[in-house]
Amino acid sequence: MTDLSKKISRLPGRIEHAPENFVADELVGAIHAHGMDASRRDFLRRSFVAASAATGALAASTAQAGADHPGFDGEAAILTLPAHSTSLGHPVAYRAYGLPSQFEANLQRRESPGLTKRRESGVAFTPLQGLFGIITPSGLHFERHHAGWHDIDPATHRLMINGLVATPKVYTVGELMRLPSVSRMHFIECGANTAMDWGGPTVPSVQYTHGMLSCSEFTGVPLSLLLDDCGIDRSNARFILAEGSDGAALTRTIPIERALDDVLVAWGMNGEMLRPENGYPLRLVVPGAQGVSWVKWLRRIEVGDAPYATREESTQYTDLMPDGLQRQYGLVQECKSVITTPSGGQRLLDKGFYNITGLAWSGRGKVSRVDISTDGGRNWQAARLESPVLTKCLTRFNFDWQWDGKPSILQSRAIDETGYVQPKINALRTVRGTRSVYHNNAIQSWRVETSGEVMNVQIS
Amino acid sequence: MTDLSKKISRLPGRIEHAPENFVADELVGAIHAHGMDASRRDFLRRSFVAASAATGALAASTAQAGADHPGFDGEAAILTLPAHSTSLGHPVAYRAYGLPSQFEANLQRRESPGLTKRRESGVAFTPLQGLFGIITPSGLHFERHHAGWHDIDPATHRLMINGLVATPKVYTVGELMRLPSVSRMHFIECGANTAMDWGGPTVPSVQYTHGMLSCSEFTGVPLSLLLDDCGIDRSNARFILAEGSDGAALTRTIPIERALDDVLVAWGMNGEMLRPENGYPLRLVVPGAQGVSWVKWLRRIEVGDAPYATREESTQYTDLMPDGLQRQYGLVQECKSVITTPSGGQRLLDKGFYNITGLAWSGRGKVSRVDISTDGGRNWQAARLESPVLTKCLTRFNFDWQWDGKPSILQSRAIDETGYVQPKINALRTVRGTRSVYHNNAIQSWRVETSGEVMNVQIS
Repeated sequence: MTDLSKKISRLPGRIEHAPENFVADELVGAIHAHGMDASRRDFLRRSFVAASAATGALAASTAQAGADHPGFDGEAAILTLPAHSTSLGHPVAYRAYGLPSQFEANLQRRESPGLTKRRESGVAFTPLQGLFGIITPSGLHFERHHAGWHDIDPATHRLMINGLVATPKVYTVGELMRLPSVSRMHFIECGANTAMDWGGPTVPSVQYTHGMLSCSEFTGVPLSLLLDDCGIDRSNARFILAEGSDGAALTRTIPIERALDDVLVAWGMNGEMLRPENGYPLRLVVPGAQGVSWVKWLRRIEVGDAPYATREESTQYTDLMPDGLQRQYGLVQECKSVITTPSGGQRLLDKGFYNITGLAWSGRGKVSRVDISTDGGRNWQAARLESPVLTKCLTRFNFDWQWDGKPSILQSRAIDETGYVQPKINALRTVRGTRSVYHNNAIQSWRVETSGEVMNVQIS
Repeated sequence: MTDLSKKISRLPGRIEHAPENFVADELVGAIHAHGMDASRRDFLRRSFVAASAATGALAASTAQAGADHPGFDGEAAILTLPAHSTSLGHPVAYRAYGLPSQFEANLQRRESPGLTKRRESGVAFTPLQGLFGIITPSGLHFERHHAGWHDIDPATHRLMINGLVATPKVYTVGELMRLPSVSRMHFIECGANTAMDWGGPTVPSVQYTHGMLSCSEFTGVPLSLLLDDCGIDRSNARFILAEGSDGAALTRTIPIERALDDVLVAWGMNGEMLRPENGYPLRLVVPGAQGVSWVKWLRRIEVGDAPYATREESTQYTDLMPDGLQRQYGLVQECKSVITTPSGGQRLLDKGFYNITGLAWSGRGKVSRVDISTDGGRNWQAARLESPVLTKCLTRFNFDWQWDGKPSILQSRAIDETGYVQPKINALRTVRGTRSVYHNNAIQSWRVETSGEVMNVQIS
């Protein structure tokens, strides 16, 4: 890293005419205090005074720094400490359940107005542009409902397993929670994520292009254990039907091989019980599969010998082909990635060093590599992958970049352990046309203008 | 697993005379619907009727189940659906930032009244008995402050690096966030965790015995990068001093080898910015070290050639020896584990199957094995470790257990990759006496009475 003194903006909300979270405000007028030449040292001195006033670096330390280091200025020694350094703060358990800082109020789930006719069947997108690592805070997990969400009393909730089993059973939530459980980190992505860009770039920011994506540590009982407990008829079982208890009675067919593999009946998400809008008290976790299969408010699993062809799998969540026919029972979210910073709606304030960061994932296993291009796909270099790299889980990548101030196209391209390479949008259009909705896992392009503005574009 | 029909209670709050979270209420009167003999089939039938009434398993499905399976009863077909299955729920973004279910309100951080003179210098414990997996929800992260917490405006906050560096510098939060970052999952444990039990069992539940323990995914810039950016004098630097900007101006000395290894200046926790009570906007992350070294509201790092002997490391957070002298600069949290369910304050409602679950960790690396004893340490069997198993991170373990209804002592014993074995309490007392406070990593024992009550006990 050669030059840390350049700046980058993380503007999650500008496009929405809402108050920004702190980073944006702060960066618009950012000072930069480091650097080596004389003018920068002057700047450092001024910055340090400002900094000392702001943070109250101890007067004694400051005086010592001033004495030891010509770059420092004794002025700082006379500055006073801020109130938070001179007073008692809030006690412990001031909030028995904690909340984010008041300065982060703008980092929130947002709807795309008009995307659905009713808000109860709408989408609230996760603000990927402001998140770090791979865990999605549960308070920012994306939402997609078919009839709104309820906060169901778990004492009255039951899960029934019926169909091709020797003994149909009904479980209470408490009974399920006493069974041997597993905990695993997995991503969940709506099959319609990035849907709006099939025909061309239409939405401005990564919150809207890719924000139907979240990742959590889930805890639950393997569905295979429950099916065995009910004596599943393994010679005839071919599919299961999972059914939710919301007003939509959402149902999905899942092949039996998958149901007996890594599917969980889960109650835990990021250490605590599922949130109501994510299926409290029970949801199906179908690692690698599109979100609609992760049935929320799960009340029933039926084992059958044929697919069920319910509404949400015959008329929706299907892949369109160029001739207008549909492929049914699409399930797997193929390998995909996106740069979350810099991304659409943000602005680079000056040329110089930037940390390009983003997320990669695959419904078929682990991400094995992420390549970055800053020239629209002509040249590629491998990004650093943060640990842990887990199967069917988000993987965070980072990449050092020096921006020369010229127009640039930023792209990420993920490759999973099966060898599958994330495709260009035109490769997808060849097999699915331009009017598809679901399973758009194309390479995302962000164009950086000479002004520093970052825009959603498509590169054929 | 031979018998799933037995019950276990997870009573996190009974000892506190507070309303329980749902699991406890539900379990007291739990029905159990599975089983194979005739009386159980009758029970199943009744349960199914109740279940159908409660969850609204579709009438059509019910009728089909009744037709296909003699164990089912057509009565269910006439029952009505609950309100949440027949009405629209809340729309998306009803809460732009989500919250737990109303039925989980009892799962919260709790103080131990009287533990400290003022609540601003108190402790709020994480409710380990009700958590799953390894990620601690940020809203339930434990708290330990020396002068209370503030919600500091990050636009005014600065980090200064001074001392034995060529160029002392002052960084804004925005500048730090533009640097190459890493994301890593680590536990944080207060050096005083389990302090109250040095002399014998004094507190009733795992929330109080072990609840100064949390685990998150942290994102930040390696401190080594910042020290290099300032031109650290590597030939003379031996220690750093980390200083917080709270009213306590909390300071800690950290050896330079560790400071240059895996220490981070972090802003991210579980995907979002740090919570105010956990150091927003900047805290030091010192993997494997006791929590007090993870300085919150971090404002200054000074590089020096000798330890600083500040108040919080000379008179506090030191290890007492039997002769009354103290070891200073204790830092590493040694290998430790605890069973979180069943644990003190919970009650087993009947003999039969239980999933014993808990957490293990080591400040020196990865956990390599966890053994479980159900007979007070005479016999040990290996538990299952959930993935991922990461360095200096919590590891979740699970273990199948059939309780025969007789008194039992449950223990877990962790072994880390260095070969270190978690000690018995008496082994610790031999070297540290009975009046120590810090670094109690002894094996925890929970006694199960014939009544099913679980109590905190000590086994020499």
